[in-house]
Amino acid sequence: MTTTRRTALFAAAATVAAPAVARSQTPRRWRMVTSWPRDLPGPGVTARRLGERIEAMSGGAIEVELFAAGEIVPAFEVLDAVGEGVAELGHTAAVFWAGKMPVSQLFLAVPFGLTPLEHMAWIEHGGGQALWDELYAGFGVKPFMAGNTGMSMGGWFRRELHSAADLKGLRFRMPGLGGVLYAPMGIVQVSLPPGETLPALQSGAVDAAEFAGPASDLALGFYQAAPFYYGPGLHEPNGTGECVVNRALFEGLPADLQAVVTEACRAENAFALAEAERMNAAALMALVDEHGVQLRTFPDDIVEALRAEAPAVLAPFAAAGGLDARIHDSYVATLELLRPWSRTSMADFLTARAGG
Amino acid sequence: MTTTRRTALFAAAATVAAPAVARSQTPRRWRMVTSWPRDLPGPGVTARRLGERIEAMSGGAIEVELFAAGEIVPAFEVLDAVGEGVAELGHTAAVFWAGKMPVSQLFLAVPFGLTPLEHMAWIEHGGGQALWDELYAGFGVKPFMAGNTGMSMGGWFRRELHSAADLKGLRFRMPGLGGVLYAPMGIVQVSLPPGETLPALQSGAVDAAEFAGPASDLALGFYQAAPFYYGPGLHEPNGTGECVVNRALFEGLPADLQAVVTEACRAENAFALAEAERMNAAALMALVDEHGVQLRTFPDDIVEALRAEAPAVLAPFAAAGGLDARIHDSYVATLELLRPWSRTSMADFLTARAGG
Repeated sequence: MTTTRRTALFAAAATVAAPAVARSQTPRRWRMVTSWPRDLPGPGVTARRLGERIEAMSGGAIEVELFAAGEIVPAFEVLDAVGEGVAELGHTAAVFWAGKMPVSQLFLAVPFGLTPLEHMAWIEHGGGQALWDELYAGFGVKPFMAGNTGMSMGGWFRRELHSAADLKGLRFRMPGLGGVLYAPMGIVQVSLPPGETLPALQSGAVDAAEFAGPASDLALGFYQAAPFYYGPGLHEPNGTGECVVNRALFEGLPADLQAVVTEACRAENAFALAEAERMNAAALMALVDEHGVQLRTFPDDIVEALRAEAPAVLAPFAAAGGLDARIHDSYVATLELLRPWSRTSMADFLTARAGG
Repeated sequence: MTTTRRTALFAAAATVAAPAVARSQTPRRWRMVTSWPRDLPGPGVTARRLGERIEAMSGGAIEVELFAAGEIVPAFEVLDAVGEGVAELGHTAAVFWAGKMPVSQLFLAVPFGLTPLEHMAWIEHGGGQALWDELYAGFGVKPFMAGNTGMSMGGWFRRELHSAADLKGLRFRMPGLGGVLYAPMGIVQVSLPPGETLPALQSGAVDAAEFAGPASDLALGFYQAAPFYYGPGLHEPNGTGECVVNRALFEGLPADLQAVVTEACRAENAFALAEAERMNAAALMALVDEHGVQLRTFPDDIVEALRAEAPAVLAPFAAAGGLDARIHDSYVATLELLRPWSRTSMADFLTARAGG
């Protein structure tokens, strides 16, 4: 503590009629576990910045120490670690909990579903946050949107695709609902943590892999083993990263620190999404111009088959009833509400801007 | 001050080794002047929420009182009032300063320019904020993105448009660069505060008017006087609202309160943009289904003429040299960088999702 701060504290105590706020006597030392390699462009950097925002706004009342995947717990155990209080908070992604609660995947992305802004509209203004809170309460955590890698690309392929037949038997690192979308095409779905995917591509253990957008993909080096890069990511038009905070801890915070944590997530979410737009744009150029990547769009028969399959991907959640169905219905209602406006505004504008 | 808080202060002072933070002895009472009617859906609501976020995160160290347009200063005097210290901060929009510093308009929207996410990428990650700071420093304020009404619509027209010839002589409330874009089409550009536009449409003082997206437009009631609603807003693909803070005040704040103000703006900016997506979608449906609005797209010859004219709108800023040219060059470089990625991701995805 500096002399200045000490003086300020005494001064505050001497004038008790003033509504000064002493945030805490000792800093709360929080551990943030993550599912990412340290400073992985995109989510890894977001996790670090989120901690810094909380520290800065809290004036030192909260200190956050960040741990990369594997340092305290493995990438796929972040949710449990935070729920059980092994760590105070974590930075991760909903797709990793598909085995525990399949409907969690709707809080990251849905094939042919909501774009990043549309997803934010659902969470913030369409009832999504309350449903997300209810779902994750069962694991002892409160979730926040806290980062976004933007729209995904379609994936990296060791061999070029000429038609839907080329997907048959393909060993594809395509997690979550994307895997469900592609399953009828005959792929073999493989699950791998981000950091283990490049070696699998190099060894031929997988034939293709999807992670996120060009920026994260470039950092993970997939182009070294799979030269064909397909877009757009029809299976994953959004890339929400999530901060999970131990629920009892969060609920016990004073109101100002609850606001600090909540707004830090909200700010980082937007900052990261804007960063993703720029980094993805620059990375896409670099991949093509400097790394010889072959940029491709999917053959028409693949696009048609995937779009036809998309409604079936969500059908099990509606059929499950209960909270799963309520989340499903809320998501689909938002998509139906936003679709005409997105066409009248974004789609028609981009078409006019492109001049065609 | 409650007894609990008083106790906490004494406890903090008694343990000086701990880095607790006493934010201030008396709350800073700030006045926020705005360019909006109180609680105008979109920017008016955003201004109120921005103040609430600052208050909540600061733990009462800052109190913000909001004033609607005209209560302390008129809508178009917010910048001067904050720069001169008449108010501590303000919520407004860059388009209103076109007379003082024409290049300020690039910080709101440019015809055929950056979409909301692309604009955020420019400000946050493409050098935009530093240029904006430099420009507004001349008026004694620091600017922040703090709200976004989303993509604009093209405007409200009392009579249907059949071709570019119908624009000749049209009295059009179309401020800023949009007015420059339309000028070669023969319109008569009219400037009016938002709250005075409906009466002008009703009296026939203007033939057409543009403000923002469907949500704000619905609230302002333009449909009552002009039944033809054209989209998209080719002249204004973004709707950034700005918070301006007295520069000396901001620079004198302790670091934690600087962070609180900065992140409150960032959070509200994203929250408002997400809200705009949902409100615009719902308002567009309501305007068509409940208010009998005739939704139209511009005739092809108007779209072609406007796109051809767009580069000329920015040319004077490049020619002016100095800061104007640096802002121009930065904006255009960002647009060129992001355009291919927006096509590969957003445009191609929305096309595939629409099934065409």
